[in-house]
Amino acid sequence: MGPLGPLFTDLYELTMMAGYYAQGKQSQPAVFEYFFRRLPQHTGFAVFAGLDDLLDDLAEFRFSESDIEYLTSLGTFPEPFLNQIPDFRFEGDLWAPPEGTPVFPYEPIARVHAPLAQAQLLETLLLCRLNYQTLIATKASRVRYAAEEDPVLEFGLRRAQGPDGGMSGTRAAIIGGCDSTSNTQAGKCFGVRAVGTQAHSWIMSFPTELEAFRAYAEVFPEHLILLVDTYDTLASGVPNAIQVFKELRAKGWKGRPGIRIDSGDLARLSKEAHRMLADAGFEDTLIVASSELDENLIADIKRQGAKANAWGVGTKLMTGGTEPALGGVYKLAAIHADGRWEPKFKISDNPEKTTDPGIKMPIRFYDVNGYIAGDVLFAQDDDSWRIGEVVSHDRMVLEHLHTFPQEFGRRPLLEPVTRAGDRLADPLKLNEIRDFAQQQIARIPHETRRLVNPQTYWVGLSDRLAHEKRQAIESFWRAHPAPMGRD
Amino acid sequence: MGPLGPLFTDLYELTMMAGYYAQGKQSQPAVFEYFFRRLPQHTGFAVFAGLDDLLDDLAEFRFSESDIEYLTSLGTFPEPFLNQIPDFRFEGDLWAPPEGTPVFPYEPIARVHAPLAQAQLLETLLLCRLNYQTLIATKASRVRYAAEEDPVLEFGLRRAQGPDGGMSGTRAAIIGGCDSTSNTQAGKCFGVRAVGTQAHSWIMSFPTELEAFRAYAEVFPEHLILLVDTYDTLASGVPNAIQVFKELRAKGWKGRPGIRIDSGDLARLSKEAHRMLADAGFEDTLIVASSELDENLIADIKRQGAKANAWGVGTKLMTGGTEPALGGVYKLAAIHADGRWEPKFKISDNPEKTTDPGIKMPIRFYDVNGYIAGDVLFAQDDDSWRIGEVVSHDRMVLEHLHTFPQEFGRRPLLEPVTRAGDRLADPLKLNEIRDFAQQQIARIPHETRRLVNPQTYWVGLSDRLAHEKRQAIESFWRAHPAPMGRD
Repeated sequence: MGPLGPLFTDLYELTMMAGYYAQGKQSQPAVFEYFFRRLPQHTGFAVFAGLDDLLDDLAEFRFSESDIEYLTSLGTFPEPFLNQIPDFRFEGDLWAPPEGTPVFPYEPIARVHAPLAQAQLLETLLLCRLNYQTLIATKASRVRYAAEEDPVLEFGLRRAQGPDGGMSGTRAAIIGGCDSTSNTQAGKCFGVRAVGTQAHSWIMSFPTELEAFRAYAEVFPEHLILLVDTYDTLASGVPNAIQVFKELRAKGWKGRPGIRIDSGDLARLSKEAHRMLADAGFEDTLIVASSELDENLIADIKRQGAKANAWGVGTKLMTGGTEPALGGVYKLAAIHADGRWEPKFKISDNPEKTTDPGIKMPIRFYDVNGYIAGDVLFAQDDDSWRIGEVVSHDRMVLEHLHTFPQEFGRRPLLEPVTRAGDRLADPLKLNEIRDFAQQQIARIPHETRRLVNPQTYWVGLSDRLAHEKRQAIESFWRAHPAPMGRD
Repeated sequence: MGPLGPLFTDLYELTMMAGYYAQGKQSQPAVFEYFFRRLPQHTGFAVFAGLDDLLDDLAEFRFSESDIEYLTSLGTFPEPFLNQIPDFRFEGDLWAPPEGTPVFPYEPIARVHAPLAQAQLLETLLLCRLNYQTLIATKASRVRYAAEEDPVLEFGLRRAQGPDGGMSGTRAAIIGGCDSTSNTQAGKCFGVRAVGTQAHSWIMSFPTELEAFRAYAEVFPEHLILLVDTYDTLASGVPNAIQVFKELRAKGWKGRPGIRIDSGDLARLSKEAHRMLADAGFEDTLIVASSELDENLIADIKRQGAKANAWGVGTKLMTGGTEPALGGVYKLAAIHADGRWEPKFKISDNPEKTTDPGIKMPIRFYDVNGYIAGDVLFAQDDDSWRIGEVVSHDRMVLEHLHTFPQEFGRRPLLEPVTRAGDRLADPLKLNEIRDFAQQQIARIPHETRRLVNPQTYWVGLSDRLAHEKRQAIESFWRAHPAPMGRD
């Protein structure tokens, strides 16, 4: 799927944009921030992904003639607006971390500085690109964690939410830690390893399983992973596979034998199969397990001493399992009016949903062993994080403090990725992003990485932001009294 | 997203295909059937969707030069195969119901008759196209049911699983019963109504809420739905909206007033807002409710007497909620060898997973009121369903019977949609498919349509299939004794 245009958006972004034009506000400088409020259940961190696709979109972000014809046909857009949009370009600055960076709730993980109409129009596209890929890279990193050193094969294309869910989902799964994919198009486009051997239909298209195995081995002796569960894994599949491996060895074959088990009790079957293979002299067999796996099942199967040593993961990886969406949002942080930046934030009845004021930069702190220790949001123009001890405030209970000692390393989370609309760096190869992600994930403390009940990572506010937030909330509620018993 | 090519597949389809060529089996006639084993929890039926996109793919299904270069670069495909695939075309017959048809577990809902290599290659593509759209059309039909006569607006683009999840998801949501979408690109491509007004960022970009409302009304007086929950719905949003409606009416405005509530207690807020609006003379206000809605929440909010009369549904519709995948599968049903069709089926330790033998046609029976009464699978060459009383068998407990009286209507579920690779009918407009779907869904008995614990719809086997299945299972297990205590 190629770059997306400006109609790939919720209509209200366009009506608001037209409204800004009509009110003469379209060029007013504005800053929007992208963040999410919660991680999927039992997940301690997210892995940022999807940025490169967004940058590809922005490079070609124009209203086509047919787009303008369509908007005109709706009969609601003012003519002056329709006359101006052929010249529309994205000319803003986008800040974000590199793809593969661990990110956490309530911190800006993308920031758009642009004329109000442009920044507004980006909302839906940015959310669609970043929410899904970040969700899947995160899920994949959990599967990677559960699989330990074993290869993880991404098998989700057939259950992906549409073809592009397949493509961008595969991309994100590789970033998060999968080693290879069944998705051939993704193999071609992203330069990652595509894998796959045979399905039950291959086996069933031959009179016997043994003939099916022999025929496959004849054509693909180098990549010989035989699917052993079509009829009866232990009574038929594994013995027939051993028979074929023996016939090949007798002819001088040097390949690594492999089997795949796609149903049944994967723990028990893999142990029994491994024993039979080892007894026959094929101790080093690759044993691929697949069948509705996710990180929790893999961890559980490994805990039972399973002998599977590679994992095919499909549906539950590619769709995110029971939590198929990351609820990232894109909020106005500040607007420039009367010669100054006016911080914007939303007070909510629900203190968790009250946003933090102004244009913010998360600063990431590193302990002396190089592990990440916490992030602190600072006003963009506040440099006080650079040296010395840093005190930070819980973003809700503002009096609750956490102190980073002076010897801790520190680095801004966001870097400029476009300036005045131009992309600043060339895209990386997907395997490079994957390697970067794996290095960064390794710097997350173990207790935040574990699969169940991870330790919550600290994302706090600087002294100045905490002070401004306290003042703003209190003065809002004094001005808007909320008697008990009503909203 | 344009048509998809043959690399949009799991690599194993290509390795199997190459294997069939190497074994001289590529042209052996084969039949594969697509079906699913279970519906999402508490759902009594599915709405078939995604076929048109699949047909678009098949019309242009060629290996490009770069596809062949990529496959060559993998170094594993035999050269004769690589030399033959430039001529590859899909030349098969595809059978399916019209999009929008209610379908049920364990019945073939697409059937491919083609040379073995072609039919095999279709697997991943067909599953990706049909699984996701059928899932979402089904979810949308439940939301439609809960919303009763109220408009349902599809708002899911920003949380869709990738851009195409947004596009094909919107398409399926319309088929299932949504009235309009926020997705502008879908509005343009599919000719459905795109809707949307303003977000919190519009309101917050003005000094006050009232100024924001007035400014919006100035630009778009005809489509005036004011978002009232930015600050305080009842203390600020609704009174300001009323103020603007009054100002407009005083100037002779004839439009319908509208508000949207996107947070808080939608039941209570909509009732209070409606009361305030009615007191001010705006009883007919459109009150759109949104905020993480699904069919269960809408039904619950309506049960509380809410005054919302339109529903915006996003994330949980577009991703399927907690069940983000339909587990449809594509299985070899028969293969032609030695001058006859050999039925193929898979016996499993789990009787539910044992498939039904041979090439099958589901026949749908209609009671005298026109409601659908049950489907019965017949061998494709068995015409005995056409007249008279029909006895059918439960597909697992074969002795359990259900009889359709002779006065019941009956019709095959599948119809040919391609012949020798050529599409037989022109595509319908999306609104036509939607209308057809709504008519068909109305013929499902109420007890199968309800949102919780629906009655299971009958899908049985003909006398002949039941007889063949009984014989095949028993002779398999006699030949493959499975002692207790092992697999």
